[in-house]
Amino acid sequence: MEDGRLMRSMLLDFYGELLTQRQRQCFDLHYNEDLSLSEIAEQCGVSRQGVWDNIRRAEAAMQAVEEKTGLVARFLEQQRLLSRLRDQALRLRDQTQGPARATAEELLRGIDALIGG
Amino acid sequence: MEDGRLMRSMLLDFYGELLTQRQRQCFDLHYNEDLSLSEIAEQCGVSRQGVWDNIRRAEAAMQAVEEKTGLVARFLEQQRLLSRLRDQALRLRDQTQGPARATAEELLRGIDALIGG
Repeated sequence: MEDGRLMRSMLLDFYGELLTQRQRQCFDLHYNEDLSLSEIAEQCGVSRQGVWDNIRRAEAAMQAVEEKTGLVARFLEQQRLLSRLRDQALRLRDQTQGPARATAEELLRGIDALIGG
Repeated sequence: MEDGRLMRSMLLDFYGELLTQRQRQCFDLHYNEDLSLSEIAEQCGVSRQGVWDNIRRAEAAMQAVEEKTGLVARFLEQQRLLSRLRDQALRLRDQTQGPARATAEELLRGIDALIGG
């Protein structure tokens, strides 16, 4: 996933519920479902310009919240640290056997749950 | 820290920048710095009632954002999982020696950084 796309998807995940339903829908269909403005316009029964306005306002509103709170940035930094922990846990699994190896595998699953959730 | 206090402190940490400066200041002085309404009123040059209104509005605004986004709840769940990972890493450290033990210690420091940050 390229960077702008990941960021937009994260913004929607974090702040989507702060938008109007229409803004959220247009933004989601365009950036996550990859529908064109015309396709969304047809599906939602609004003009192509209306769709674009909703997408633009949605992005501006979510960017404004992110600029103030920095919560997505904080989350991405956490994911970066978790991914480093994962490498260490993999190394540990290969360095151990018996009960220690079982603990390392448990740890690895825990890290994966955190990265995935 | 009792639960209500932890929650208020988290709300301010996550969403404080979405408040007005005055709301943030009153809320912080009252709940984090433990100042009375009268003390804050004197310090800020507003009425005691004004201080209370700011605190009440600050809390309502942050609660409203949290109810929609659930980001503080998500963070607290993450912390719970990290604390379990920490227990496993401690166990691993005790189960290992040599290079594996060094990796386990590295992992433990990484988890602590995540819990602390």
